[in-house]
This record gives sequence, structure tokens and C-alpha cells, in this order.
Amino acid sequence: MTTQQKRFLLPENEIPTQWYNIVTDMKNKPLPMLHPGTKQAMKVEELYPLFAEELAKQELNTTDRFIDIPEEVREKYKFYRATPLVRAYGLEKALDTPAHIYFKNESVSPVGSHKLNSALAQAYYCKQQGVTNITTETGAGQWGTAMSYAAKAFGLELAVYMVKVSYEQKPYRRSVMQTFGSQVIASPSMSTKAGRKILTDHPTYQGSLGTAISEAIELAMQTPNCKYVLGSVLNHVTLHQTIIGLEAEKQMAMAGEYPDIIIGCFGGGSNFGGISFPFLRHKLIDNKDIRIIAAEPASCPKLTRGVFEYDFGDEAGYTPLLPMFTLGHDFAPAHIHAGGLRYHGAGSIVSQLKRDGLMEAVDIQQLDSFKAGILFAQTEGIVPAPESCHAIAATMIEAEKAKLEGKQKTILFNLSGHGLIDMAAYDAYLADDLSNYELSDEVIRRNVDKLENNLPTT
Amino acid sequence: MTTQQKRFLLPENEIPTQWYNIVTDMKNKPLPMLHPGTKQAMKVEELYPLFAEELAKQELNTTDRFIDIPEEVREKYKFYRATPLVRAYGLEKALDTPAHIYFKNESVSPVGSHKLNSALAQAYYCKQQGVTNITTETGAGQWGTAMSYAAKAFGLELAVYMVKVSYEQKPYRRSVMQTFGSQVIASPSMSTKAGRKILTDHPTYQGSLGTAISEAIELAMQTPNCKYVLGSVLNHVTLHQTIIGLEAEKQMAMAGEYPDIIIGCFGGGSNFGGISFPFLRHKLIDNKDIRIIAAEPASCPKLTRGVFEYDFGDEAGYTPLLPMFTLGHDFAPAHIHAGGLRYHGAGSIVSQLKRDGLMEAVDIQQLDSFKAGILFAQTEGIVPAPESCHAIAATMIEAEKAKLEGKQKTILFNLSGHGLIDMAAYDAYLADDLSNYELSDEVIRRNVDKLENNLPTT
Repeated sequence: MTTQQKRFLLPENEIPTQWYNIVTDMKNKPLPMLHPGTKQAMKVEELYPLFAEELAKQELNTTDRFIDIPEEVREKYKFYRATPLVRAYGLEKALDTPAHIYFKNESVSPVGSHKLNSALAQAYYCKQQGVTNITTETGAGQWGTAMSYAAKAFGLELAVYMVKVSYEQKPYRRSVMQTFGSQVIASPSMSTKAGRKILTDHPTYQGSLGTAISEAIELAMQTPNCKYVLGSVLNHVTLHQTIIGLEAEKQMAMAGEYPDIIIGCFGGGSNFGGISFPFLRHKLIDNKDIRIIAAEPASCPKLTRGVFEYDFGDEAGYTPLLPMFTLGHDFAPAHIHAGGLRYHGAGSIVSQLKRDGLMEAVDIQQLDSFKAGILFAQTEGIVPAPESCHAIAATMIEAEKAKLEGKQKTILFNLSGHGLIDMAAYDAYLADDLSNYELSDEVIRRNVDKLENNLPTT
Repeated sequence: MTTQQKRFLLPENEIPTQWYNIVTDMKNKPLPMLHPGTKQAMKVEELYPLFAEELAKQELNTTDRFIDIPEEVREKYKFYRATPLVRAYGLEKALDTPAHIYFKNESVSPVGSHKLNSALAQAYYCKQQGVTNITTETGAGQWGTAMSYAAKAFGLELAVYMVKVSYEQKPYRRSVMQTFGSQVIASPSMSTKAGRKILTDHPTYQGSLGTAISEAIELAMQTPNCKYVLGSVLNHVTLHQTIIGLEAEKQMAMAGEYPDIIIGCFGGGSNFGGISFPFLRHKLIDNKDIRIIAAEPASCPKLTRGVFEYDFGDEAGYTPLLPMFTLGHDFAPAHIHAGGLRYHGAGSIVSQLKRDGLMEAVDIQQLDSFKAGILFAQTEGIVPAPESCHAIAATMIEAEKAKLEGKQKTILFNLSGHGLIDMAAYDAYLADDLSNYELSDEVIRRNVDKLENNLPTT
């Protein structure tokens, strides 16, 4: 029985007052997002119809290294932040590894995930501008839940397009959003042109994040005083999530250690960037020797097996063109239970970092992710979200390497959320009903070959 | 937008080091539990076959006002304690009440409820004594989840009898327990005499907490090196839960207030006693003017409509006879969604306090409980457990009274847990599929008339 300190808690007055904008420290800046018609770099005012102005400005901000967190957002952060940094003694012991494993526990937020960090900020900026209605999409439901909470907190009406397969398989997620007062629509739906088209072409289509984004954008554009909000991929979303890493930096200092390796699961990049960018800045500025690893699902491997191209962020092609590692915007990933990782592309910052060798990526099979999740639950007492299980599996690989090398490495990963509303996935795993998914090179090639833009990316 | 302090956080070194034993301060002690054969007061060693020795001693302890929390238990408490005390500004505003409303947020534990406070203690004492296997029952699943976590944390094998209707309606709860490594059996089952009997007599019986307790006790008695653990009702369970109120006492002082009214939902009494007993001691000792209110479901109203008699704690009659307000040990409460409140009796301490007019009780209808829960979710951002909704509904009644009287009262209630694994209940409520339950005096009388013991209770 240990009496070592396990949790590192940051006092309320130590909660960061600014977010960190990594773009300012990157030698090679991310390529600009392009207007799909003119193929010219988007101007900030061209983003205003879709996004709140402050968010659009943050999206294109390449000059301010730190951006103030509005007082009203900080007040709401304080309801669940700072989140604990935890030394995973139980997991270390079970793995019999010399590695020191830490995790940042974002599951303690009232909606159970890190998503609230950006949801509150986005709701605030919309409200501040006088917006009354917002639309968004959700895959697994974590983002939709967080946005529902934030919309209610700032008095906004929210419509959420939820990927149909999740809508049907995860009724609890839907109920939480409805309990917070949001309108939830299964996507594809008949309420938008994009939805109607895909339903007509493929009547039994179970939906994708790309389609749900198209529907949410379309509804926002047709609704008075309405903006669209997104839960990942974009720069301003990751910006808000840097509070995770900024807190973790202080907490690692409390623990008297500095991470050699930082790991986050990877869907669009917001929790990954959130935990890693504040540490990465010491690599960019001081050449600090750290490894940053994105853990993506083997069934949706844009970073490990995708191509770097300009592509749309959504299935219907409503968004600007984004420079991303992508599997193609109409790639239909297998229905793995980590719904939050089923997205075809990586955000432009992460994509540039990957090109520059400043980070790595690893792909994790579904069965390995749940095996890791169960070990974590039994040793650390928290049932992780299926998405977070990917980060845990990658952590276990690195802990095993440390053991083989006989080196005491310090690993930090982000526990992006808990899995208490995703237990159907664990049920299926425990009943031996889950499988891995093999994705052939042929399928990937067929998808990315369809990318027609062929815009210069060098 | 408020900038007032909302959360009151206790530093780790302020977490109480002792539990509070209210029996020592009661003028009229609770009547003793009786051996069902001899009808004599149970001796502590007569409890040893069923319970770990330290727990049996705590159960009958009438002399030690404070009992040390073992260091190993405190270490595990620190993973989620101290829990926040929260000023419910949002709820106050929605109710337009002059009352100041505070809640203790026990939902932040990794299993989502207060139940872990006693589960960890019970697992520890079992382990310390060399016990290898434990059995228990669970109704809604909160206790079973907590005990599964605690059993794994202390390296014990656990079998959980789960009331069949919950087993089928709440598969997620079952999955969480299985994820933590427990064996979960639907009750009534064919694995015990008590289960077989009731299945033979009533093949379609959906189970009750009373039956599940009988099964768990029977299995414990037949298994080598095995003890039984219980999640509520008994004195030692409530003792462990007093950490809630002891923390809240310090946190209310941080807020610069003292509660006029303290409210907890009521099943067997553990969360209710946990929040209220430490405050009640100032009423017992210093005659402090506070009101303590138990919020029970209208469908299982032992405190408001039951009788005070000696009765069994389980359906089959395996337990000692307990002096309790009861609806009869084979009372079958309606299948409301607050499964944790579906228990026929109140613990002996609470029953004595009720007899002595030191506390009150109120019954809450199911629809009112969910209406309160939704308002709370939308104003405070936490989806409450269906059980906790009863405490919120009672709080709203008192806040309304304060408004009518034009008095600024301070109300403290315990948010015993979150409802994220109970969303089927909210689903049903939002779909207008729930109803209230009327319980006739006739039914209650028929049940309590069956109590054969007729032992003196004065």
C-alpha cells in the first residue's frame, strides 16, 4: 500500500489566465486555409458568416503568442478546473515498468470530457456578439454534450446533428444533450440539402462526422443570427484546449518531473494539441528533447497512412479547403466504438508539425484499445472513454519499450474523458463481440486519388 | 454574469482524519439489533461470521465519538476527496428565491456517487483481516459499482447480486461492475436457496433489494473466507459517510454561512446520515436550531407512512432484527427509476432520531423528482442521479417556502451522485413515459400487519 502522492492539484488562483497559440512559435507556419472558389487564402472577414468574429480572428491569429481567457469563461472553467494530474502508480505496477506514468484527468468535467474547454469559450464569444442560435455536429456525443452544457450556460439555443449510428447506439448520449435542453437530430437527416442528397443516394447510410458537419453548416447559414461551432480540427478549438497542457506543465513541476513522452488520442487533434502544444513550445524554442505521439485508430489512420493535401473538412464540401493529412473527405471509416476518432483529416497545425518531424503518430487496433482501457479501469479506477483508450494503449507500448531498454522514462498522457456513457462498447468487448478492422492500401489509395484539388502543398 | 465564488474546495490536508459516531451524542440511543432466534441483543462476536470484525465493532460502538480513518483508506479517499461544496447560484436564480442553496457534490467520485466512501472502508477492513472474497447486493447499481472499484483496489474477489429489473434495464451499470472485474448475478437467481424459493413461488419476479441481500448473505455464509458487505442502513456504513458532512462543515465555514436546513435523499440512510449527522451533533449538543429533512420516494415511504417495529433487513429473514421505520421486509415497491431508494426500512439511528423529533421526512413523487433534476441539470450543469433528484425536489419546496415567507434561509443538500449511467430514466421522463405511483393505506397496512415479531419498541 503506497502513501506516495498520487494527485497533483493546482489551486484555483493558479489556473492559467491565457491560452497558448503555438503557431507563433512554429518555424514553418501551417499553410493557409483556402477559399474553395478562388483558391486564395481565406480572409478573416470571409469566416464571419460562419463563425463568431472573435473565433474567426483566433483561427487566423499568427502573432499573439498568448491570448487572454475571458473572465466569464474562466469563471465557468473554475467549476471543474484545474483538473487533477495523476501519477498512475497502479498502472505502472501492473505493467512492471520503470517508466513513470502520469495522466491529466479531463474526465472530471461535468460532461465527462475535455470538450467543455472549447465549448464554453465558443459559446461565450457567440453570446458576446449577440448570436442567439448555434448549430454543431457530434460523433460519439462528447462534443455535443459539452456544447449543450455550454449553450445552456450562456443562454443560446443549440441544434446538434448527431451521426446516426451513434444516435441509435448511444441513446444515453442523446438523452444527456436533451436533458441540457438541446435539439438533437440524427444525421443524415431530411432537414438539409446535404442530408437529403446522401439519404437519396444511400437510403441506409449510417452517417459520418463529415456529413453531420455539412448539415450543421447548412442549417447555420440558413438560420438568422446563427453561427456554427466545431469541436476539433480548427486552430481556435485547439487553442482553447491548451489550458490542459498549461496546467499540466505546472503540475508536472509540482511532481518534480518533466515528461520525456507526451501522448494523446487523435481524432481531429483538439485534446492531442491541448495536452502537447504547451510542452512542444519548449522543443520549438529551447530544443527540449521530448517526443509527442498521436494515437489514432487503425481504422482511420490519417496521420500514419493518409496523404498531405488540401481537402474539405466536411463531406459535402461546404468548408474552406484545409491543408491536412487526410484519407479523403468522403472516407467512410469503420464503425469502431471510439466515434470521436472517426474523422478523415488532421488539423492544419498538427499536419504541419507532422511534416516537420516534430511529432509522431501510431495506429492502435480496436481490441488493443479496449484491453488497455480495462487494465486502466482495474488499476486506476476510472473507466476511460473508448477514445482515451487509444492513448492508454500507446502509453503501454512506450512503457513496455522503457522496460526493454531498462530506462526510467516519464510519460504523460491525456485522459480525455470517461466512458460511463459508452458502456455498450465495453459490453461488446467483454462479450467478445468486437473485432479489429484491417484497412487495405488499395482502399486508402482509391479514396485519396479522388482528391481533385491538387493544390500546391510545398 | 457572476464572479462570486461558486465552489469551496478543501485542501488535501484538511480532509477529516476521523469519522463521527453520532450514537455517542444521542440522549435516547437506538434500540439494539436482536438475534432473531433468542430475541436478545446481538453480541459483537455474533456478527463476526457475517461481517469483518472491525466493521462489526463499529456497528455496535456506542462509546467512541470519533473513529480514526485508517491511513490506507484516507490515501484512497484522496483520489477524489475532498469533494466540492457548491453554491447553486443558477438554481437560486431560476427559483427566484431569497434562499442560499449549497450542495455537496459527491458525484465527482470515479464511480459517480458517495457510495465509495464506505466501500473503500469496508474493503479495507476485510482485506486487513485476511478475507479473500466478499458478496453484496445492488439495487440501482451505485453501491455495486463502488464496491467493485473498492474490491479491485484492495485485491478482493467480489460477487454482486443485482436486482433483476435493474440488471435488465441498466446494462451499463452491470458493464461498469464487470469492467472493474466483479461477478454480477441477476437476483433472484438459482444460485441460492432464497433465490430458488422465490423463483419457484413467483417465476416472473423482478427482484428487490431485500431478496438480493438474502442471496448475498447466503452466498457469503457458504463461501470459505468470505464476508458480506452492505451499502446502507447499518450504523457502520453511515459512520463512514459522515466524512461528507464533516467536510461540508468546514466548507460552509469557508463560505461564511451555516445551514438552516439540511436535506438528503433517503433509501437506507447512508448519504442522508453522511451529510446531516455532523451538523446534527450541534443540535444534540448545543441545541443549534437546524432542520434535517429526509426526502424519500412517495412509492416507498417508510419514514412518512411506515410503522416503527423490529423487522428483518432482508426478504428471506437472514439478518438480525432491526428496530426500524418499515413497510415490512417483503414490501415490493413500485419500479421507480430511483432504484437506490427502493428499500423497505430505515436504519436504526435514523429511526430513533425520527421518533425523537430530531429530523423530518418528506415524500416526493417521481415526476416531481425528474422535473427538479432537469431544472438542476440546466442551471447547475450536472445531471443528477434519480435518487439525488429527490433531495433537489425537497430543496425546491423549502426554497419556495423561504420565498413565500420572505426569509433568507441557507439550505444545504447532498448531491449523492450523477445520473450519467441512468439516462434511460431521463429518456422515459422526456418521452412522457413515466408516472407517479399512489400507494394506498390499505396496502401499507396489509404489509406491516404481517410483521410477526411484535417485540417491544418502547
